[in-house]
Amino acid sequence: MEDAVVLAARCAAPAAGEPYLLTPGPLTTARSTKEAMLRDWGSWDAEFREMTAQLRRALLDIAGDVAGDYDCVPLQGSGSYCVEAMLGSLVPRDGHALVLANGAYGKRIATTLRYLGRRHTVLDKGDYLPPRGSEVERMLAVDHTITHVVVVHCETSSGILNPIGEIAAATAKHGRKLLIDSMSAFGAVPLDVREIRCEAFVSSANKCIEGVPGFGFVIARRDALRDAKGRSHSLSLDLHDQWDAMNRTGQWRFTPPTHAVAAFIEALRLHALEGGPRGRLARYARNRDVLVSEMQALGFEPLLGERWRSPVIVTFFAPAHPAFRFERFYALMKEQGFIIYPGKLTVVDSFRIGCIGQVDASVMQRVAKACAHALGAMGVDCAAPSDAALRERGALAAMA
Amino acid sequence: MEDAVVLAARCAAPAAGEPYLLTPGPLTTARSTKEAMLRDWGSWDAEFREMTAQLRRALLDIAGDVAGDYDCVPLQGSGSYCVEAMLGSLVPRDGHALVLANGAYGKRIATTLRYLGRRHTVLDKGDYLPPRGSEVERMLAVDHTITHVVVVHCETSSGILNPIGEIAAATAKHGRKLLIDSMSAFGAVPLDVREIRCEAFVSSANKCIEGVPGFGFVIARRDALRDAKGRSHSLSLDLHDQWDAMNRTGQWRFTPPTHAVAAFIEALRLHALEGGPRGRLARYARNRDVLVSEMQALGFEPLLGERWRSPVIVTFFAPAHPAFRFERFYALMKEQGFIIYPGKLTVVDSFRIGCIGQVDASVMQRVAKACAHALGAMGVDCAAPSDAALRERGALAAMA
Ligand SMILES: Cc1ncc(COP(=O)(O)O)c(C=O)c1O
Ligand SMILES: Cc1ncc(COP(=O)(O)O)c(C=O)c1O
Repeated sequence: MEDAVVLAARCAAPAAGEPYLLTPGPLTTARSTKEAMLRDWGSWDAEFREMTAQLRRALLDIAGDVAGDYDCVPLQGSGSYCVEAMLGSLVPRDGHALVLANGAYGKRIATTLRYLGRRHTVLDKGDYLPPRGSEVERMLAVDHTITHVVVVHCETSSGILNPIGEIAAATAKHGRKLLIDSMSAFGAVPLDVREIRCEAFVSSANKCIEGVPGFGFVIARRDALRDAKGRSHSLSLDLHDQWDAMNRTGQWRFTPPTHAVAAFIEALRLHALEGGPRGRLARYARNRDVLVSEMQALGFEPLLGERWRSPVIVTFFAPAHPAFRFERFYALMKEQGFIIYPGKLTVVDSFRIGCIGQVDASVMQRVAKACAHALGAMGVDCAAPSDAALRERGALAAMA
Repeated sequence: MEDAVVLAARCAAPAAGEPYLLTPGPLTTARSTKEAMLRDWGSWDAEFREMTAQLRRALLDIAGDVAGDYDCVPLQGSGSYCVEAMLGSLVPRDGHALVLANGAYGKRIATTLRYLGRRHTVLDKGDYLPPRGSEVERMLAVDHTITHVVVVHCETSSGILNPIGEIAAATAKHGRKLLIDSMSAFGAVPLDVREIRCEAFVSSANKCIEGVPGFGFVIARRDALRDAKGRSHSLSLDLHDQWDAMNRTGQWRFTPPTHAVAAFIEALRLHALEGGPRGRLARYARNRDVLVSEMQALGFEPLLGERWRSPVIVTFFAPAHPAFRFERFYALMKEQGFIIYPGKLTVVDSFRIGCIGQVDASVMQRVAKACAHALGAMGVDCAAPSDAALRERGALAAMA
């Protein structure tokens, strides 16, 4: 209990009438992060240039780049823009990418490569099964034309934490290059470039660092950024050009989201204060654990077994009860101050609850209580999932 | 004087220690615009979807689209992203664009078309000479392969207001399509689709509507958006896809800059309160006129003659005096609470002062006083420009 009080003190509640966002970004940010936006910054001015430099340094530190092999390139737009910039700039026009897909964001990577006209092969694991290192090894051994492996770190559409350690090892063993979409994981789930050999990875401002949306960033090997010259399909998403201009002038090529950058500087300060990625992971993991155990006590079952469950977002099966309807459940949760998220599974009904942002274990307890209340209001006396849902889950358990 | 007091009351000063941004966006925004960012919004939630719908409607209203021929597509990223999205989505792969360039932003349009592999011809008028309707007519009469004319409304790099009326007429007369970069003009300088026949135009959140940076928008004919299906070189910048998804779901395809959107809603409210584009133009035009006359009293000369001078930003020649140095001038102005902007002319030294954002005539008077003080501190006893600068200006006067 004392523990919960400390955590509650750390995460201040949103202002009156404002719900908690239990969504995987935009998320509930700290009051001081938002207050950092109460000032207008000139993007050409030295003070703002220093903020940009500070942000780049801090992110490289979090990535464990002690050797200086990597550089950080912030880019205006949403996270998907950064994924596209990474793919369009780092995969050569005659390259061949192996895309490991097990959800919406993996599929979006394949769609992006199709737009770019880059050859790609998709290992599609369906809605939630993890791509394994052994599978990647087999595919790379057979197809020597594959130059890059692209993987999603936490596939936010189910909440699965993909095994990037074994995938990185398999990719390195075969001398190929690894690109990671770590959008929803970086900053909390460990991604240290000394351990995970990768060419580049991507994340964005409004995930585990807990900033507001407006930009993302690519952390890439300097030699990869150098080689990317003249390769991009797009001026706006030309990673080499953004990198080169930023290193020469200290400025973003085009108007930066100055307020989102100022908020991010404050978010980075709070991140460090909490103990960096390690401290953040501890809080998020506890959020997840409290959430899952309280929800299980109500009869809700998570999609994923413990081994694959990320500390980012948890998918729960919708109750099999005929009176359960997601839209009503959503509205009842919102009335009680919580915004939850619809599920993204194609086969069975589900919903998702995020564990990231300025929320702690005491909030998660209140979320479960609100779920219980919502069930009562709908007349759902048992939150147990359907047999079909549990069969789905069995497929995953068999793999683990 | 009374007039100035009223205006001063309308534009509150920035917080203590915070300079005015006399730059063409990011600019000084209203306190209440920034305060609208003190809340986190769920991007999937109905309230946020309604904010997006409201924003789209308000922008179409400002554009004068009473017939419902156009639609508004907001897009994450900076203004240049929206220009690229417009070009990549609306100019067919076998199209041919005539780019009217007289500064950095016109040149960027040509660079973007080069990235996209779209055939283009550039009419390059140098640093500040206006492209004329008669020139466009001549070029269109000769080259029947040209499908689109692309023009910058206010070319912010010099501050010139290009004659889009005569250019639109010339383009329409020859049955070609017009695309406009109205980034720094829309919302204050008239751009009414009933008068200016165009296929599409672009602007962004942080210009004359006085929002914060984070997104821009394309206002395009609905039939052009329909025809754009499958044409874009980029998933992130696919205008058709963004439009189609937004119309089907009410949501942005990827995470929107929720805080910048909330700020924009408040900025739109203030814009309407000031009397819409007409009221805003009146304030900006007065800002420019007061600025120019006070600066002329100090010996500074604007680059452009009255006819071409936009109410957005004014370029002044640097004083010929040997003790004048821009870096020192910038620092002295900043000390007095004003961020100014370097010039972008290639031939003679210059600097720029913006007239947009939450500033009024009384601020402009103080800017001129600050300039006088800065000159004194540098030991510059005369702000008159060089003979070379005045010869430059003569070229333009001869044209008008
Ligand atoms: C793993 C992953 N990849 C990509 C994205 C797309 O990011 P955005 O919505 O900012 O474009 C997300 C968003 O949640 C994500 O979780
Ligand atoms: C006329 C014009 N076009 C394009 C741009 C580019 O916009 P952004 O810097 O937001 O990419 C600007 C920016 O000031 C502009 O003034």
